[in-house]
Amino acid sequence: MNPDQDYHWPDLAGRIVNREHVMPVRVYYEDTDHSGVVYHASYIRFCERGRSDFLRLIGVEHKDLRATEGGPDAYAVKRIEADFMHPAMIDDLLIVRTRLVEMRGASFLARQKIERGETTVFSMNVLVVPISREGRPRRFPKPVQDVFVSFLYREENSA
Amino acid sequence: MNPDQDYHWPDLAGRIVNREHVMPVRVYYEDTDHSGVVYHASYIRFCERGRSDFLRLIGVEHKDLRATEGGPDAYAVKRIEADFMHPAMIDDLLIVRTRLVEMRGASFLARQKIERGETTVFSMNVLVVPISREGRPRRFPKPVQDVFVSFLYREENSA
Amino acid sequence: MNPDQDYHWPDLAGRIVNREHVMPVRVYYEDTDHSGVVYHASYIRFCERGRSDFLRLIGVEHKDLRATEGGPDAYAVKRIEADFMHPAMIDDLLIVRTRLVEMRGASFLARQKIERGETTVFSMNVLVVPISREGRPRRFPKPVQDVFVSFLYREENSA
Amino acid sequence: MNPDQDYHWPDLAGRIVNREHVMPVRVYYEDTDHSGVVYHASYIRFCERGRSDFLRLIGVEHKDLRATEGGPDAYAVKRIEADFMHPAMIDDLLIVRTRLVEMRGASFLARQKIERGETTVFSMNVLVVPISREGRPRRFPKPVQDVFVSFLYREENSA
Repeated sequence: MNPDQDYHWPDLAGRIVNREHVMPVRVYYEDTDHSGVVYHASYIRFCERGRSDFLRLIGVEHKDLRATEGGPDAYAVKRIEADFMHPAMIDDLLIVRTRLVEMRGASFLARQKIERGETTVFSMNVLVVPISREGRPRRFPKPVQDVFVSFLYREENSA
Repeated sequence: MNPDQDYHWPDLAGRIVNREHVMPVRVYYEDTDHSGVVYHASYIRFCERGRSDFLRLIGVEHKDLRATEGGPDAYAVKRIEADFMHPAMIDDLLIVRTRLVEMRGASFLARQKIERGETTVFSMNVLVVPISREGRPRRFPKPVQDVFVSFLYREENSA
Repeated sequence: MNPDQDYHWPDLAGRIVNREHVMPVRVYYEDTDHSGVVYHASYIRFCERGRSDFLRLIGVEHKDLRATEGGPDAYAVKRIEADFMHPAMIDDLLIVRTRLVEMRGASFLARQKIERGETTVFSMNVLVVPISREGRPRRFPKPVQDVFVSFLYREENSA
Repeated sequence: MNPDQDYHWPDLAGRIVNREHVMPVRVYYEDTDHSGVVYHASYIRFCERGRSDFLRLIGVEHKDLRATEGGPDAYAVKRIEADFMHPAMIDDLLIVRTRLVEMRGASFLARQKIERGETTVFSMNVLVVPISREGRPRRFPKPVQDVFVSFLYREENSA
């Protein structure tokens, strides 16, 4: 492979710092609407990227789930509570922060925030459940639960 | 204009029945994701279409807001609480139902449901506020408040 | 079922007039971008809806393809050539027109236009091929080819 | 600011190597459709990100355009010709490559490719024009033209 084309993209899936996942998101035209700001549902998509990359980094992404016989095949969002605090704009560099705050055999709760510099523009609690390929509820296999538990955010984690 | 091309599209903005707005949404490829079902944030977009068309039909859409001196220029979503109950699929015909349930001088609360036949696939409470072009909070002008109040959903409205 | 809720939505999948499929599309916030107009890739999504509904109406949609043993399972876009002629805006009522202009055993070419009143805002030629579930090229079964051929647009069709 | 939160995200806007802009794009759920692959219009969005970041890096982004009196305010896509060669999938790491291949006073032509490893999944030629806030055609100010010309891709640039 041509060395000019051997690209290494560090941090493409963000970073985990003190059990909090952090990733950057640039606001492009596709994320905005005619009122001049980021379209409200875009923040929800950005948060899904944060959750996917957190799970990717800790090894419990949907691909990893399928390794277990009788285990779940995917994650499904069950409930969200979201606050839209300040509008973000085209070209903004946003930071998506994700914390796993609760873990049960058949669900986990994540708390997510999107910031622009010092300003919190959006925050969301999201309940996610493991499901089978047909959409039926499943339980997390013990090894997956253990991984989640090891990354549960604790107040003493904040500096 | 050629009479073959004089199209009339009844109900393009849905209908209001007993103070509830109802509109159909067909699920296309763009609304789904690789897991085979409707992508979660798509329901939030469908609900925005329902709110926009409800406001369009009762004459208090963003264009109508700007008619008043010092009045608001737009609507902004402040908070949503959403439950994802059953997955919807490609080609499904979904019904988006919207009810205005609370109205204050500087916000309104809508309750929305998305159904497929007899099944409720999604439901959401959404708090919306009027804002100026620069994003500052505004109050609804009295005539606009009166329109909202006249369409507030009451339990005795359900058959 | 409550008669107030027995909704009939005529023309939800558009209409075929003189072998041309016609459907309305309302521009919502989600389709626009911060520059104040419809985001360019939105027109491409609107055209996909037009093709899907045309195929739905003539009975050769992806679901119908799968009925044939060894036949294709889906459609895939191979090539598009698109011209963006005039910007469309929030709240516009656009008309998507779709014509099937060429049909071969393993592809079809559609010509699509999006209009706002008398103005053509967008036009596109799109080459679509039938594929298997794994993405391999397939040929159209003869009965499907016959349906396409019967809906090929001919110049004498235009009024 | 807490040093744990002093994030530096190198290459967020990609890199320019031999006058070719290169940026990574991860495929998330939002980019796919129920057929299991990346939705066709998603590639067009990815390419827009590549162009925006190329222009951002060389200092002729839409914000930079507005600095000139009487100059353009924005870029508008006029025409695209796109080939969809191989399907990309959830979790793929794609590389978007952008080359400026022609520059005139009132337009530029970019050639873009999206690759997954050694495979080209998508390629596109796109004609872009500068416009005023009201959508009227404008010419590029000379300093902007000079920047574009200095980044025009030449065959001798490829290794």
